[in-house]
Amino acid sequence: MSTTTISGYLLDRLAQIGVESVFGVPGDFSLQFVEKIVDHKIVEWVGACNELNAAYAADGYSRVKGVPGCLSTTFGVGELSAINGIAGSFAERVPVVHVVGTPPTEQMKDKPLLHHTLGNGHFEAYSKAAEHFVVASAILSEPSTAGAEIDRVLIDCVTKFRPVYITLPTDLVNAVVSATPLQIPLDFTIPENDTATEAAVLDVIVKQVSTAQDRVVVIVDGCALRYGVTGEVKDFLRKTKFPVFVAPMGKSAVDESYERFGGVYAGRPSLPAVKQTIEQATLIISIGAICSDINTGGFSHELPKTKLIELHSDRTEVFHAVYPRIGMKHLLPKLTTKLPTPASLMPMTSYAYPVPEEEHDGITQPWLWPTVGSHFRPGDVIVADTGTSAFGTLDIRMKSGSVYMTQTLWGSIGYSVGAALGAALAARQCKMGKTYLFVGDGSLQLTVQELSTMMHLGLKPIIFVINNSGYTIERFLHGPTQSFNDIVNWKWTKLLDALSDEKAMSESYKVATKTELDQLLSKPDFGKVITLVEVVVPMFDAPPILRRYRQ
Amino acid sequence: MSTTTISGYLLDRLAQIGVESVFGVPGDFSLQFVEKIVDHKIVEWVGACNELNAAYAADGYSRVKGVPGCLSTTFGVGELSAINGIAGSFAERVPVVHVVGTPPTEQMKDKPLLHHTLGNGHFEAYSKAAEHFVVASAILSEPSTAGAEIDRVLIDCVTKFRPVYITLPTDLVNAVVSATPLQIPLDFTIPENDTATEAAVLDVIVKQVSTAQDRVVVIVDGCALRYGVTGEVKDFLRKTKFPVFVAPMGKSAVDESYERFGGVYAGRPSLPAVKQTIEQATLIISIGAICSDINTGGFSHELPKTKLIELHSDRTEVFHAVYPRIGMKHLLPKLTTKLPTPASLMPMTSYAYPVPEEEHDGITQPWLWPTVGSHFRPGDVIVADTGTSAFGTLDIRMKSGSVYMTQTLWGSIGYSVGAALGAALAARQCKMGKTYLFVGDGSLQLTVQELSTMMHLGLKPIIFVINNSGYTIERFLHGPTQSFNDIVNWKWTKLLDALSDEKAMSESYKVATKTELDQLLSKPDFGKVITLVEVVVPMFDAPPILRRYRQ
Repeated sequence: MSTTTISGYLLDRLAQIGVESVFGVPGDFSLQFVEKIVDHKIVEWVGACNELNAAYAADGYSRVKGVPGCLSTTFGVGELSAINGIAGSFAERVPVVHVVGTPPTEQMKDKPLLHHTLGNGHFEAYSKAAEHFVVASAILSEPSTAGAEIDRVLIDCVTKFRPVYITLPTDLVNAVVSATPLQIPLDFTIPENDTATEAAVLDVIVKQVSTAQDRVVVIVDGCALRYGVTGEVKDFLRKTKFPVFVAPMGKSAVDESYERFGGVYAGRPSLPAVKQTIEQATLIISIGAICSDINTGGFSHELPKTKLIELHSDRTEVFHAVYPRIGMKHLLPKLTTKLPTPASLMPMTSYAYPVPEEEHDGITQPWLWPTVGSHFRPGDVIVADTGTSAFGTLDIRMKSGSVYMTQTLWGSIGYSVGAALGAALAARQCKMGKTYLFVGDGSLQLTVQELSTMMHLGLKPIIFVINNSGYTIERFLHGPTQSFNDIVNWKWTKLLDALSDEKAMSESYKVATKTELDQLLSKPDFGKVITLVEVVVPMFDAPPILRRYRQ
Repeated sequence: MSTTTISGYLLDRLAQIGVESVFGVPGDFSLQFVEKIVDHKIVEWVGACNELNAAYAADGYSRVKGVPGCLSTTFGVGELSAINGIAGSFAERVPVVHVVGTPPTEQMKDKPLLHHTLGNGHFEAYSKAAEHFVVASAILSEPSTAGAEIDRVLIDCVTKFRPVYITLPTDLVNAVVSATPLQIPLDFTIPENDTATEAAVLDVIVKQVSTAQDRVVVIVDGCALRYGVTGEVKDFLRKTKFPVFVAPMGKSAVDESYERFGGVYAGRPSLPAVKQTIEQATLIISIGAICSDINTGGFSHELPKTKLIELHSDRTEVFHAVYPRIGMKHLLPKLTTKLPTPASLMPMTSYAYPVPEEEHDGITQPWLWPTVGSHFRPGDVIVADTGTSAFGTLDIRMKSGSVYMTQTLWGSIGYSVGAALGAALAARQCKMGKTYLFVGDGSLQLTVQELSTMMHLGLKPIIFVINNSGYTIERFLHGPTQSFNDIVNWKWTKLLDALSDEKAMSESYKVATKTELDQLLSKPDFGKVITLVEVVVPMFDAPPILRRYRQ
């Protein structure tokens, strides 16, 4: 029997599913595992400045690479620091494997008064707390079951698109287990739909499309990305020629350079042409909808059941009828086959958000976003923090092969900085384009130290710090002029230098006028090294879509 | 009936028990409460850069001021970011009131798909997770019970010396409640001990002290600080003249300028004279012991039951006999009365840790700690991070009225930076001396942004950054030369400038030789503004006590 160690087994499994980087902070109960990562042939260790940022990085890595992110922390202090990041991945349906190093198995049973414990013998408190935010846990306690336990949670992680939690006691890191199961890759196959029900669903959808004639539109949402059906969606759209829109959480599920892409639909705040096209359609096919408040423009979606066909991972709904367990992964390709080409020649307004003409030279958010967006290239990765950055980037048309990420549901400010670390690393591994980070001054303060790790890894994101003198998104909600929405106005252009060692190369700029930003973006060598651009905008300025949210 | 609002009730109660500052980060479900804090006459709002740091600050504030710390965060994203800080306060028995702003009561019942939720309708997940790390929770849901619920958890917070958790829905912030209960201050009285049992305990202790004659020593530990008996301990020591030592977690429970103070006892790693005196005693009176691994030198305490009297908050132990519910708060004053003065004239070695003579001019940790310590003044606040800073400061004799803090049990690296913010603010409110922060380069990276808040508040701590090229404490444990124990060598002396606005005044220095540090510490205006001193020490250097831990 060929053998390996528990840590070797876990790392080999991670490598098999495409994970090349594990993020985290070493701690005394995880050092042994971290050492095994450093020694592994495929998986590399990425030390972050703190655990929350590492969790965000694992999330961003997953979203770009389409494989689970992975995070290593230590018992108690480390894992709890990461829990908001894990909960965010759970909410947003991003698969992340969280490996927690714990005291050795004997101590986990005997519960001595160790450091990193609560002092009350409740060694299980952390895993109990974690249960609310993961889809599966494996509390490894002996070699005989470790391999099967690891396989079980990895399958859950990949097929349910949610975080999982693994505890690895220090004495089990090098415990010997059979390597034989590693010869068979894990099976992530999604079960086929029931044949008879699926046939009935296909018939009814084909019939409704035919009845609706040209007045059919498609809205693609977050679960299309999360449940890995973007390929099926692409085939479906190319054959049918249906006009396609995305909800905010679906952004980058559809190639935005596609001529039938019509923009972002979020109910009331949508661009008027988008809203009109969708709400005048006779039939709306929704793929992977997540009807959260912000994703639906504050529940202002106008998608009446009588017009709506919903494709989900676990069911299909046609008007008022629900077909349980008819999932989109297998339904979509059959629907594509059954529908004619083209199934729709519905005319649509060309989608554009031109740079507005403004008389003054000061930078405004309506001008900023399309201006920067005009520099995006195919394959770029766009990371936007919650707040004006997320709203500002929504209506910007991205080039082919781009990836977009923000936390529309979870909305944890500061997320984008850690996420951009993981995203930029994954983009390098996948040979993609530039990584752009858009983050407000308030949000950047939560997680700023991770700029250091980007430089340490030689990553070269372009970081736009939207300096609007505080928490502008909150000024729109409550207390516009209250002091608690002010922040300290850091010397933003000095950050990259201070947070790096002598070897790092970086550039930082402050721009306050359109002329300055235009000139900067046109420099031939702009973005050749990691670059931070502080963009000064008025305190109460906002992207047009955010203003429409507030109407 | 006089009335107030729920938020007014809570803030007035906090003010009554001495809380003057609430730390936190505003979020959309907490903005209404934060606004009420800003408007309050006594309690002020302190916006931190992130929630974990704010939790650490609330902990540090409590340790200096002797009242609960208070923290305000928003639903989900905010509160979970703080949970490691709260768990640390729980482990280390520091009272903290964590007020979480939640969606309005109707939404808490109906559970719509809101941002900051997990997307699965589990609105209770966060409070369930929090339960592991607090001693009481109040899930406020209607005005009629809110006042009593607030009172209940505040009493638990203060009398059990642990964090409590309060959720405050946005629509209840201004809900009207009776103000009448506010006229009666909360009752934090600890119940008297059973008279007969207590009398028996007193008799047996007096008899044992008499039998032991002069060979009695006292060891004061963390629970003496946490359960507020330092005054009773002081009276006890002054009358009896017993030689007194502290365990690491008990540091600053005893005035270290006291002539009968003998130093820190932590088992094997203790200074040889300390170890010898204690282990040769006939009778050892231990007050408020917390027998965790690091606090006992890795369980190397030599305190045999046959010599040991243990005074705890909830019981007394004399040799092998346990007297349940005989707590030290009421027992100690009676013991002081019953014992003669002096009860002991046992001679003891004068406690000193002189600056060692070294031939070279490079800074070493054995030289560094007593050198810096010689500049401490009465009433100073010393904050040390986990790692070499915590060990290095242990044996430094502090002046009268000093407060010392580190996380001996919880050991979350980065804690000290947030804690120093809260500690320095409390020290200013209490008119104490300088706040010193000792933090390693690795630890500072986790929580560095809070230096900004210190400057914003005009606080002037002296920050020693021990630059030993990474996680030296972990190098001692595992992987001394492994890359995962390296960190990016930031430009430490540029941090204060980058993380402040144009108005802030700060000074930063880098010292690598004894001459440089001596000259700096002797400058007449040293520490007049917030000051960061980067102290370059060898990578594998360590304080003497840490070396003894590893022997």
